[in-house]
Amino acid sequence: MLHTDIAAALPEAIEWRRTLHRCPQPAWLELFATAFIAEKLTAWGYEIKMGRDIIAGQQLLPPSADELARARAQALAAGASEQFLAPAAGGHTGVVAILKGDQPGPTVGFRFDIDANETAESADPGHRPAREGFASQNPGAAHMCGHDAHAAIGLLLAKHLAARRAALRGTVKLIFQPNEENLGGAAALVASGIIDDLDYLFGGHIGLALTEIGHICLNIHDFMALSRFEITYTGRPSHAALRPDQGHNALLGSCAAIANLYAIARHGLGASRINVGYHQAGTTWNVIPDKAYFRMETRGVSNEINAYMVEKAHEIIRGAAQMYGLGLDIKPAAVAVVAESTPDLVALGEKIAAGLPSIKKIVPSAAFNASEDFTILMQHVQSRGGRALAALFGTPVGGGHHNAAFDIDEQVIANAAEFYAAMLDAIQGDRP
Amino acid sequence: MLHTDIAAALPEAIEWRRTLHRCPQPAWLELFATAFIAEKLTAWGYEIKMGRDIIAGQQLLPPSADELARARAQALAAGASEQFLAPAAGGHTGVVAILKGDQPGPTVGFRFDIDANETAESADPGHRPAREGFASQNPGAAHMCGHDAHAAIGLLLAKHLAARRAALRGTVKLIFQPNEENLGGAAALVASGIIDDLDYLFGGHIGLALTEIGHICLNIHDFMALSRFEITYTGRPSHAALRPDQGHNALLGSCAAIANLYAIARHGLGASRINVGYHQAGTTWNVIPDKAYFRMETRGVSNEINAYMVEKAHEIIRGAAQMYGLGLDIKPAAVAVVAESTPDLVALGEKIAAGLPSIKKIVPSAAFNASEDFTILMQHVQSRGGRALAALFGTPVGGGHHNAAFDIDEQVIANAAEFYAAMLDAIQGDRP
Amino acid sequence: MLHTDIAAALPEAIEWRRTLHRCPQPAWLELFATAFIAEKLTAWGYEIKMGRDIIAGQQLLPPSADELARARAQALAAGASEQFLAPAAGGHTGVVAILKGDQPGPTVGFRFDIDANETAESADPGHRPAREGFASQNPGAAHMCGHDAHAAIGLLLAKHLAARRAALRGTVKLIFQPNEENLGGAAALVASGIIDDLDYLFGGHIGLALTEIGHICLNIHDFMALSRFEITYTGRPSHAALRPDQGHNALLGSCAAIANLYAIARHGLGASRINVGYHQAGTTWNVIPDKAYFRMETRGVSNEINAYMVEKAHEIIRGAAQMYGLGLDIKPAAVAVVAESTPDLVALGEKIAAGLPSIKKIVPSAAFNASEDFTILMQHVQSRGGRALAALFGTPVGGGHHNAAFDIDEQVIANAAEFYAAMLDAIQGDRP
Amino acid sequence: MLHTDIAAALPEAIEWRRTLHRCPQPAWLELFATAFIAEKLTAWGYEIKMGRDIIAGQQLLPPSADELARARAQALAAGASEQFLAPAAGGHTGVVAILKGDQPGPTVGFRFDIDANETAESADPGHRPAREGFASQNPGAAHMCGHDAHAAIGLLLAKHLAARRAALRGTVKLIFQPNEENLGGAAALVASGIIDDLDYLFGGHIGLALTEIGHICLNIHDFMALSRFEITYTGRPSHAALRPDQGHNALLGSCAAIANLYAIARHGLGASRINVGYHQAGTTWNVIPDKAYFRMETRGVSNEINAYMVEKAHEIIRGAAQMYGLGLDIKPAAVAVVAESTPDLVALGEKIAAGLPSIKKIVPSAAFNASEDFTILMQHVQSRGGRALAALFGTPVGGGHHNAAFDIDEQVIANAAEFYAAMLDAIQGDRP
Repeated sequence: MLHTDIAAALPEAIEWRRTLHRCPQPAWLELFATAFIAEKLTAWGYEIKMGRDIIAGQQLLPPSADELARARAQALAAGASEQFLAPAAGGHTGVVAILKGDQPGPTVGFRFDIDANETAESADPGHRPAREGFASQNPGAAHMCGHDAHAAIGLLLAKHLAARRAALRGTVKLIFQPNEENLGGAAALVASGIIDDLDYLFGGHIGLALTEIGHICLNIHDFMALSRFEITYTGRPSHAALRPDQGHNALLGSCAAIANLYAIARHGLGASRINVGYHQAGTTWNVIPDKAYFRMETRGVSNEINAYMVEKAHEIIRGAAQMYGLGLDIKPAAVAVVAESTPDLVALGEKIAAGLPSIKKIVPSAAFNASEDFTILMQHVQSRGGRALAALFGTPVGGGHHNAAFDIDEQVIANAAEFYAAMLDAIQGDRP
Repeated sequence: MLHTDIAAALPEAIEWRRTLHRCPQPAWLELFATAFIAEKLTAWGYEIKMGRDIIAGQQLLPPSADELARARAQALAAGASEQFLAPAAGGHTGVVAILKGDQPGPTVGFRFDIDANETAESADPGHRPAREGFASQNPGAAHMCGHDAHAAIGLLLAKHLAARRAALRGTVKLIFQPNEENLGGAAALVASGIIDDLDYLFGGHIGLALTEIGHICLNIHDFMALSRFEITYTGRPSHAALRPDQGHNALLGSCAAIANLYAIARHGLGASRINVGYHQAGTTWNVIPDKAYFRMETRGVSNEINAYMVEKAHEIIRGAAQMYGLGLDIKPAAVAVVAESTPDLVALGEKIAAGLPSIKKIVPSAAFNASEDFTILMQHVQSRGGRALAALFGTPVGGGHHNAAFDIDEQVIANAAEFYAAMLDAIQGDRP
Repeated sequence: MLHTDIAAALPEAIEWRRTLHRCPQPAWLELFATAFIAEKLTAWGYEIKMGRDIIAGQQLLPPSADELARARAQALAAGASEQFLAPAAGGHTGVVAILKGDQPGPTVGFRFDIDANETAESADPGHRPAREGFASQNPGAAHMCGHDAHAAIGLLLAKHLAARRAALRGTVKLIFQPNEENLGGAAALVASGIIDDLDYLFGGHIGLALTEIGHICLNIHDFMALSRFEITYTGRPSHAALRPDQGHNALLGSCAAIANLYAIARHGLGASRINVGYHQAGTTWNVIPDKAYFRMETRGVSNEINAYMVEKAHEIIRGAAQMYGLGLDIKPAAVAVVAESTPDLVALGEKIAAGLPSIKKIVPSAAFNASEDFTILMQHVQSRGGRALAALFGTPVGGGHHNAAFDIDEQVIANAAEFYAAMLDAIQGDRP
Repeated sequence: MLHTDIAAALPEAIEWRRTLHRCPQPAWLELFATAFIAEKLTAWGYEIKMGRDIIAGQQLLPPSADELARARAQALAAGASEQFLAPAAGGHTGVVAILKGDQPGPTVGFRFDIDANETAESADPGHRPAREGFASQNPGAAHMCGHDAHAAIGLLLAKHLAARRAALRGTVKLIFQPNEENLGGAAALVASGIIDDLDYLFGGHIGLALTEIGHICLNIHDFMALSRFEITYTGRPSHAALRPDQGHNALLGSCAAIANLYAIARHGLGASRINVGYHQAGTTWNVIPDKAYFRMETRGVSNEINAYMVEKAHEIIRGAAQMYGLGLDIKPAAVAVVAESTPDLVALGEKIAAGLPSIKKIVPSAAFNASEDFTILMQHVQSRGGRALAALFGTPVGGGHHNAAFDIDEQVIANAAEFYAAMLDAIQGDRP
């Protein structure tokens, strides 16, 4: 059946999206979005899980106290409620909202990522957010990937479901995930156990390969598995003229590591990647550098190929430490895997989509060609016997993703919410 | 003859030294010392040269506008006069004071370096400057190498000479040099031509190898020639997963350069040194680094050996740029040479020192084992037919040079000034 | 129509193959095979082209005089005729045999590679050539890739065509190519102009991905483009204790090059490869190495990707030369490209194959996953408007290609010759 | 007292030297010299120790069976006796000859090295050995360092002492040491215990810094401590196109090691050296190299500095093995230390030399600037309470040491033997 209430509520959803767009906050700092979402969902009758209940295990690339304080001030200035900020205060952002139907049925999760990018937004009048007054008010942060729209999709779906709770069979979990951009949120959710009971998991992204309204794709391939690490070598400083022999040169260690990291043999079975994107070592001219720090990532078109890259990289990094007698710290910073949508769910989704008036074209397949931590959630649900589906929802994008002039057609918000609502119907048997 | 007025004026010189100690400013930022010295010397009748008249050529590692603004505020707060700050406002610090005798005679230069170290001073009550209230009031800067005492020696000598101007034969140039610590001041002085006419040049350092009051050494060996460079590679960024092939990896270039810089062959004829003390490259995880910057220095126990190191280093740095298709900028940052005191001036100095009651021991020779840009001034004067002498003046030092608890016996100020005055007598024939 | 004479002549072809198997000679040294083939084809009425008429341009990895002398002795001992050895004496091996029909028609080439591998053959009685007495009699050389069978296919086809010359429309060129294993023969053939006039070109390989008799595949993909180079650095020797500074260290140059060669960025558009398979530098302990030599290869799944690898490799190699002040020689050693069979010829081939009783299965496609210089001939013919087809002919292989126990089912010789004869019919219109 | 018999016997000693010069054999292959010396000394009444009695412990860089067979053939052709070849057959060359006096007294050792260089001798008629017919008859070997003269000095001294045995107090050990050039002989002698009982040890070298007949120097400084190692990495081969990921690249390991070996920090306390003089890795183009082998040496102006170099080198070598998952073998190949002559023996020697008519000048000191394993014997004797003296005996040298045209003034043979005989008198009290 069609849920005309969703299309009707689009103007309200657009307001939500623009409110979020005005106060963008990057990974682990999404305090405003967290409080905004939690407040709404509480009002609509959802059970709310927040903070350490949903963000568990070792937090990857945690924020600093300074960053958190700044983010809190931004959130308060944007109107966040102290009550809903509190659980996320330590950077444990995000919300999982639970709605239990009165009748038995499956547990179905929908995931929406909510973090912004660490980049400035265009102030050009040709850029609609600037022109219409909802551009980022937080310096150095902006929603340039559409996660504000993702959150609005989640809220629109949430309001729709809350209104029809009586018809709900089983349980719905709306997962507003923090930190997708740094690929740290999904692993923390998994560690909390909050998605252990999902029978179904849905997630999606707007735009990317699909640049027209009404297009949808449920067959995404070429996700890349990814691992990121922070590497720190600790040596021993020494005066470079008087006693160079007494130094343990951390910079020479990291140079040896870096040169050889890129030289890891290409894998015979498929594409791999390696990069050291940032490196810093030493202090001043005449002192043997005793610290070196770098950020590296590996990727692979399969989880096995990425695991190969990680294993070889760690051997090289350890060998370089031994070369120069250095202390070594390897800290995981991000992870994504390769996953595929469950085939029968793809088939069901394409059938449902074909029946929706808002869907104009079902694109048979699309390459993702990058990494996305929704794959971690998919893998977790599938490994426990559940089904998972990743969708692309078409929209023209101004500027391109991560560009300062990124912009969307907000109609996509309703389109995605309608598809999710229809999939829930299909799984549960049509709700009246 | 003995100049008893010098010893009598020591208490005043101690006050000067402590005033300078309270407002320490590092290389190219010595605005307070410059104004303080210029004001005094003007009052005593000296002709004053400042700013671009004495600091010429390409300024090595010039200060930023922010640093200069902060330094100016410190100087004003410490009582500097606007009039004498003005010529040095752009970071062209230092003073050359000229006193011309009525009778013909040689032109004799005395050099005193005036810059402080970029380090904090101990606040421990066991540290005399802290206990007696003349510790550094400028965060992150302190006179931990004794250049405040050097300046006080110059002022003490200046006041003595001004009082006896009638007896002066020839010309005296008192050179208050900025930026010895970063080895940038001497080259700028030479470039200005201000020392071109010197027949004699004297300079000295307190402490170091001589740790007792009354000791003097005029035979310093094992200066090291030194060259410092800032190296910047510019490549091309690219997404590390999508098109790594389109990047020009500046980090790989700098790693190749650094590893091979340390591998420059040892020189068969004497000691050499190389260090890359600081390195920074790249921005974020998934972008091929398009910038890499590092600071390197070479040294040698002869100017030839250092020149060999510089030549080989530049070949390697250029080769690494070619390897990765990188743009390259090599910017000189510091320079020092190997120089030796003129032998007959050493002999004369030892004879004169032997006749001074304040000198208790003439140490036959001492190793410097480091770099000092006074050598550049010595080399310049000697290359034009003049004579030069580098002296060490003994004093116990608390903590050690460049240590936060560095302290001296202020008696050394009078001892050094007396020696210089006596040398001037000897060169000119005794003044009455 | 079926050519039953071919199957009938198989026993004779097996004798030829075994005779060739007994006297295997590797790249540019195939003197026995050259003379054996030339003698037969001359007897059968073919016009013969040999030596510099077919092997032109710069010969890649040419043989030494010693190697040639040894090969000549082997060939004579195996019964080669002086007359037919003469044209190939300088290592310009191979034969192109031309048969002109009396009627007009296209020029059709068939290519058969004839060189052996530089490896020993198994003497195990379980290995048929050993058991039946036709194993290699040349130490360190053996037909472990089936090129002896390829030559026999060519001879079998040649005898068949000679017997039916009257029916021939147009011209047939049977190309017995030397040096496929080192990827040097095809480029030399192209340089001679001998294949400039081909309207059609056929070539094939036995075994590989097709391990059953009667299987054929005409849709080979994943050839890899390849380039090989010999790199020589020349520096300056010096005593490592007395004057290490006077050396130009060729070993350090090659180490810098090699480490960075493997670090060439993976290509975003497809697989690439790099290897330095052999490296040699220096002489003795206490001398700075003044020579370094290595052998490298690049590959890519497209000609563009391989060209990218070559360009980046050469930049790195040149940069390393500059780093250490080294002379540099880059000598091409081998080349292969990516090519695809002409689609309409694939379609025709599959239709013809379907009608041959000896063909039991048409495998729709197969990955080659390696490099083969037949691609150079294909590319040349296609670039001039001709059509080309690469085929795989199935046979079980003992041991695997390049293995000391490699063995085949000789039935494949007749199967391949029959397919070629049938293709010629199809192109020419059925010959009576 | 003067020993005029020595000068008288010089013509005979010259014959011995020329006989040895004709049959030069390098390290561990000195079969002819060993047999020639042993036969003479036996005839003169000495007790002879050979083979494993004097060459013990792990033999550094042992000869191959092929090399030994060739050396044995040379020795036999040159007239060596089977009887005296036998003990040295396995490459345990050298002779220690013992003469015990009838009267008690100290045990005094004299060391003469006997090995030739691995180099060709000049055939130019301007080269005296060529002109006068005693040039090397062994291809690729020649006495280009004067060890043939050293052996002749030993024989001349031996004949002199044998004739005066009655006057001998204590014991004389004449040590004809093999393998000084590869720095392997001394360590083997020490391991055998044959020099454990020496109260005095004398050794010397002709030429080097002293290029005039009659000059002597007993104050040699700037020996360099040295260590040599053979390094072998073992990885895993793999096809470079099909499965590069399955290889363990031994060449990349050795390149990482070599680049970083040269980058070991210079020592603040004195000169150090490092060299990798020879490197070999891999087999063919398309296989990941699974073996890499190199020869490296470290040196230092003190034993501590050399030990520092060895320790750092081994850390780097092990680190590179870990980087690429390689097996590693580190095999010691040579060793020399820094040692100094015992001061009172230097003083005594200079007094004695001053009284010898053949000595025209006592050079106060000379730099050795290289490594010599006599230092190992000196260190061993001194560490057990004995005294040791290293001497230089002047002679003009044609061409220079290790040069194909090296030549000497044979008068130096008598000069050295006379000095040794006089030193023995002085130690024992004058013999009648």
